[in-house]
Amino acid sequence: MNQIIRFCMSCGEPTQNRTPDGDNRSRAVCGQCGEIHYVNPKIVAGAVAVHEDRVLLCRRAIEPRKNYWTLPAGFMETDETVAEAAQRETREEALGEVRLNGLLSIGDVPHIGQVHMYYLGELVDGVHGVGIESLETRLFTEAEVPWEELAFRTVTETLRHYFSLRSRPGFDATSPGAPYQFTAQWKPAK
Amino acid sequence: MNQIIRFCMSCGEPTQNRTPDGDNRSRAVCGQCGEIHYVNPKIVAGAVAVHEDRVLLCRRAIEPRKNYWTLPAGFMETDETVAEAAQRETREEALGEVRLNGLLSIGDVPHIGQVHMYYLGELVDGVHGVGIESLETRLFTEAEVPWEELAFRTVTETLRHYFSLRSRPGFDATSPGAPYQFTAQWKPAK
Repeated sequence: MNQIIRFCMSCGEPTQNRTPDGDNRSRAVCGQCGEIHYVNPKIVAGAVAVHEDRVLLCRRAIEPRKNYWTLPAGFMETDETVAEAAQRETREEALGEVRLNGLLSIGDVPHIGQVHMYYLGELVDGVHGVGIESLETRLFTEAEVPWEELAFRTVTETLRHYFSLRSRPGFDATSPGAPYQFTAQWKPAK
Repeated sequence: MNQIIRFCMSCGEPTQNRTPDGDNRSRAVCGQCGEIHYVNPKIVAGAVAVHEDRVLLCRRAIEPRKNYWTLPAGFMETDETVAEAAQRETREEALGEVRLNGLLSIGDVPHIGQVHMYYLGELVDGVHGVGIESLETRLFTEAEVPWEELAFRTVTETLRHYFSLRSRPGFDATSPGAPYQFTAQWKPAK
């Protein structure tokens, strides 16, 4: 969930929650040096890496959602682009290189302060392997996708959109068009 | 630029920069409680709010780039969607309501750890006014846009893309298609 900032990152003194002058939201403000600490959404970048008619999924070796299947994806870093982050995550989690063809989906996840962005791409030579955060990686046809064992809502929505798009006449894998945009609302676990 | 985290947000003790186990980047790690502090890119969300053949720009009342013209835009907050952030910023900076029609551009700005996302929309009833962070707001035709006085590279790129898109036969303002994606590289000021 969102970070709680109890102490100032600059001087180490305790913060107080208050609305700074000229602002309209409560922030963690340092009681000593006055620094305002903003908490902003994080971008999760990932890829639908396709080889022939199959998509690459990874079974998670780590929490949250350990053992569930996910698209390769993770938190974007500050010195890269969204596309580079999607490629790096595919490399780290699935030991694969992905050639990106365009943005496929954008999922807002406001209750945890995240925005998930998935690219459509081709898995180079179909090569993949088990990265450090994965237990297993595998290429799935549409019929084989373990829908009930997917890790995250945004993964399910993105895969559904991809297969729907792919089934349309004139589908061009190199140009997925306007990204599918959706909001993943909070829903209690079953 | 990117935040420097000298003290732990959870316990207030000094951090050290080191690569945590299982990671491949240096992070600010608390010497006392071991908390790892990640710094991730921030999303700036904004709108190209159109009324008839004009686009809404705001002259900035604050640094950086005070006095320069910008599209209404600002840092996304954690409890909203990208679209809601674009609408909120239009409301705050230009006292206008914008009906969004799709994502127009995504600009990576890796040297400052930001991703700028602009929606295309309609400014409801053409109504706008001077918000607290603006000195002036105004609707500009393409010929009137003060290109040399625009505040940010991503604003220039987004406006150029919009006018180029609009000039194409069959342009549909309610469906801008695949967003224009670009990277704004660091360039020294003139």
